Amino acid sequence: MREIIKGFQATSQDDYQLNVTNIIKHAARNYGGQEIAARRPDGTMFRYTYREAYERMQRLANALKGLGAVVGDRIGVLAWNTRETYEIFFGVPGTGSVMLLLNLRLLPQQLSWVVNHSSPRFIIVDESLIPLAEEIAAESQKVEGYIIITDKDIRDIKTKLRPVYSYEALLAGAAPQFNWPNLDEKSAYAACYTTGTTGRPKGVYFSHRQLVLHTLAALVEYGMTPSQGRFHREDVYMPMTPMFHVHAWGCPYTATLSGAKQVYPGRYAPDVLLKLIAQEGVTFTHCVPTILQMLLTAPGSKDVDLSKLKMVVGGSALPRSLARAALARGIDVFAGYGQSESCPMLTAIHLTTKQLSEEPERQVEHRTNPGLPAPLVDLRVVDADMEDVPRDGKTPGEIIARGPWLTMGYLNNAEASEQLWAGGYLHTGDVATWDANGFIHIVDRLKDIIKSGGEWISSIDLEDIILEKKGILRAAVIGVRDAKWGERPMALVVLDPEFTGKVEEDAIRDHVRSYVDKGIIAKLAVPERIMIVKELPLTTVGKIDKKVLRERYQRQEAA
Amino acid sequence: MREIIKGFQATSQDDYQLNVTNIIKHAARNYGGQEIAARRPDGTMFRYTYREAYERMQRLANALKGLGAVVGDRIGVLAWNTRETYEIFFGVPGTGSVMLLLNLRLLPQQLSWVVNHSSPRFIIVDESLIPLAEEIAAESQKVEGYIIITDKDIRDIKTKLRPVYSYEALLAGAAPQFNWPNLDEKSAYAACYTTGTTGRPKGVYFSHRQLVLHTLAALVEYGMTPSQGRFHREDVYMPMTPMFHVHAWGCPYTATLSGAKQVYPGRYAPDVLLKLIAQEGVTFTHCVPTILQMLLTAPGSKDVDLSKLKMVVGGSALPRSLARAALARGIDVFAGYGQSESCPMLTAIHLTTKQLSEEPERQVEHRTNPGLPAPLVDLRVVDADMEDVPRDGKTPGEIIARGPWLTMGYLNNAEASEQLWAGGYLHTGDVATWDANGFIHIVDRLKDIIKSGGEWISSIDLEDIILEKKGILRAAVIGVRDAKWGERPMALVVLDPEFTGKVEEDAIRDHVRSYVDKGIIAKLAVPERIMIVKELPLTTVGKIDKKVLRERYQRQEAA
Repeated sequence: MREIIKGFQATSQDDYQLNVTNIIKHAARNYGGQEIAARRPDGTMFRYTYREAYERMQRLANALKGLGAVVGDRIGVLAWNTRETYEIFFGVPGTGSVMLLLNLRLLPQQLSWVVNHSSPRFIIVDESLIPLAEEIAAESQKVEGYIIITDKDIRDIKTKLRPVYSYEALLAGAAPQFNWPNLDEKSAYAACYTTGTTGRPKGVYFSHRQLVLHTLAALVEYGMTPSQGRFHREDVYMPMTPMFHVHAWGCPYTATLSGAKQVYPGRYAPDVLLKLIAQEGVTFTHCVPTILQMLLTAPGSKDVDLSKLKMVVGGSALPRSLARAALARGIDVFAGYGQSESCPMLTAIHLTTKQLSEEPERQVEHRTNPGLPAPLVDLRVVDADMEDVPRDGKTPGEIIARGPWLTMGYLNNAEASEQLWAGGYLHTGDVATWDANGFIHIVDRLKDIIKSGGEWISSIDLEDIILEKKGILRAAVIGVRDAKWGERPMALVVLDPEFTGKVEEDAIRDHVRSYVDKGIIAKLAVPERIMIVKELPLTTVGKIDKKVLRERYQRQEAA
Repeated sequence: MREIIKGFQATSQDDYQLNVTNIIKHAARNYGGQEIAARRPDGTMFRYTYREAYERMQRLANALKGLGAVVGDRIGVLAWNTRETYEIFFGVPGTGSVMLLLNLRLLPQQLSWVVNHSSPRFIIVDESLIPLAEEIAAESQKVEGYIIITDKDIRDIKTKLRPVYSYEALLAGAAPQFNWPNLDEKSAYAACYTTGTTGRPKGVYFSHRQLVLHTLAALVEYGMTPSQGRFHREDVYMPMTPMFHVHAWGCPYTATLSGAKQVYPGRYAPDVLLKLIAQEGVTFTHCVPTILQMLLTAPGSKDVDLSKLKMVVGGSALPRSLARAALARGIDVFAGYGQSESCPMLTAIHLTTKQLSEEPERQVEHRTNPGLPAPLVDLRVVDADMEDVPRDGKTPGEIIARGPWLTMGYLNNAEASEQLWAGGYLHTGDVATWDANGFIHIVDRLKDIIKSGGEWISSIDLEDIILEKKGILRAAVIGVRDAKWGERPMALVVLDPEFTGKVEEDAIRDHVRSYVDKGIIAKLAVPERIMIVKELPLTTVGKIDKKVLRERYQRQEAA
């Protein structure tokens, strides 16, 4: 199919490759004096410039070469949101080695499985995570070495890991300039494993080309909005999702190419994040709803000015009550939609100037909608035959997508890859409606939808309604088996500590019923079982873990 | 070199191609209701939506297929900045045919040469340009047909062109949906010919991939600036450079992907442009200095509010006096730098928030500087051995570049292509200095620099100084041969009509000399010959034509 243009001899232009090295090179050359601030484990701040960070990335690349790493090798990373992780984000893939981001919240046996499945030659380990690395290592013997991120002399580190190297000593001993290879843009750049709903973790890989295109398109998405949720060069960026979770949603790369100041919080907790927002003047961040909720309710939160913060919320649906609470604090909060398989950006909402002048409750409605597809993302909502469902805002279907940066499939898992890409589109497993303007409205995860008496009940809608009631902090709705209806919704509710004992299950049910009376939900959607619980289980990336809830309460039902 | 990722079977993701069709598809799907306003030849306005424009692009694609056009065919375009040209921008390359943009200001014999050199199968011709097309056709017999853009019945058009088709009739008779091929992204998308300084026009070609990457990067460049010179979705875009000139600097594509309102002025003159700016609320445009100058001095210009206009000026250096005059009218004016060979974006200036608070004269200085390289553009200033010159802001060298969207070379011209890409970088032929922060300061075109007594004199600097004098409208400085010094600068000056007879050549010389006294230029830079002339010759894209001036005044000298 490729047409060779007559009259053109191949020149070096033809060999231009989209790879991550070009991002950092550009930033270091043109914004070399820009600041990166990083919190040390002791709470003090470390500061350096893009230029200095780039030099350390080159030292890291030379160090890896010195250890014998070659193009295609996997290099594992077990670390927090530190500046060293940021250095690794460029220093490792730039050499042609593949960055394998390990989810430090997985169980040790899961991580051992991941390591054996993906075969990293070396693993870079934060000193504080050595005990976890040792547990992993007990079940995965092929790793050739561990590189420890520590301020200490490596001889003073007590560990069973063998052999060990000091990240700092390796960098100190390496040359400050690296001759980056002109990597083929379709070679792998990074991988991370998702904890699927069933079975083993699944590994998604992305190529250099995909990451670069994701970076450009994200900057377009966040640059083209007239004002709401806008990212620009003078913003101050800090990640509030783990960097092992789809490389912090790609945002460290977008921040770097734009030349913005960056803040790395290390191992973070809500109080640390609040302090850094105030101290470093953070203006742009991203997180899952749970983190936002923690940020708003943490002790001392009310004393921190959050009115300059822009925040994209993804990973799970953004509840209206949470959006309302964030807006009340002055946060420019808005929804984005994506998943690990999609690198992750698929959509984001950006309000028009006209929408920004609408009344607050209408804004909440807009801001919790996932919005329009990002540039070049081809998103469809389809039925079981992959035909588009009507764009009527009410017929549900599955969201499928094509675009320049979607994973090709799951590593070493042909069957799951085929399912993921059935019919030439990536199947998201999310159910949505869409309207005539192309806006999608997510109904539920396909696996979370409650199928009751032939009808589909959205767990997200029910949670949103329950959270509207004063005194309720978190809510999860799951389907439990029912002999008559197939499934029935069940609600698990966590109360705001101040309201302990003051909200009863019946009152919640009455609250939900009032939405039946208003014609918003069907009668069948009212949960018979509502249970007030102390806490809800979270997944490793901070979402409510409905798989665990289903297992727990199905079992009770069966018992 | 390419690493095949183990464990991945090829899925349809691997075949994702960056081609222009994906830009218009995305826009029509997500911003389908957005308006495009176009001025008809009779001065009335035509309005339609992205969705309707996209349907016409599909009809055009079907019509071309009906005529037998296949992938790789060239389709010539001889037209003004009309909505039909906009339709052609997507409808032609989307089929796999290559859009050949013909510069309607070239001489007929040059255009015949271009047509014979590039062999278009069909040429689309604006009705008003039929006489020109007939002259071209007389010397180029291989064209299989001419498609006339006209409101009239094709039988009422008198022309020697054979065979002729009506653009409108073809579209009316074609199906409204086209099954776009998934073109290989490296296939050619468009070509245009530059009128080099010597010899025949040279043809630059760009691939679909290059255009898409240029579009994304331009949106990043204009989206990441905090406020100055920013482009966003709610801007109103109108081109003020010819669309045949490197496809209107790529801006119709960036406007389309962002979903902004667009305005096409047709065959334009300053009064038309001023009227459209007011009437359609135009907020973003681009032009060469001459057009800006015409806009500011056109009759009635002062009555038009230009204070909402953002304007990137390129093609030639933006003189300080012109920037000052534009700022006085409230225009957010700023420089960009590029050339036909570079698609064209290489750099743009965007002021920081801090710079925007500086005094006006400092802002003029910033705004006339070409600024920093656009995202992913690798720009260097080098000596004859291609070694970087010191980043001291004073050592001149040639600007060379690499990046994702630079032409691979000149069509059917191996020798010139090799020169262009000597040593693996595109040689711009521009001389500049650069400073420690990566900012370039353009000294001159390599061919325009005046070499006098072993020193280099910048014609741009001298013009800038001359234009500072009240009453001077335009200035051009060229080098003329001199037995003693090799070359000496000569200045040609056009006076503001109000100042006719009131400014004398000696006064201009004294003005230039005062800059010697201030230590800004060397004594040798003061031109002995200063000549007040009625008009300066312009190139086909509106720049001052120094080639013509040199020929004219060298000859005088010799005579």
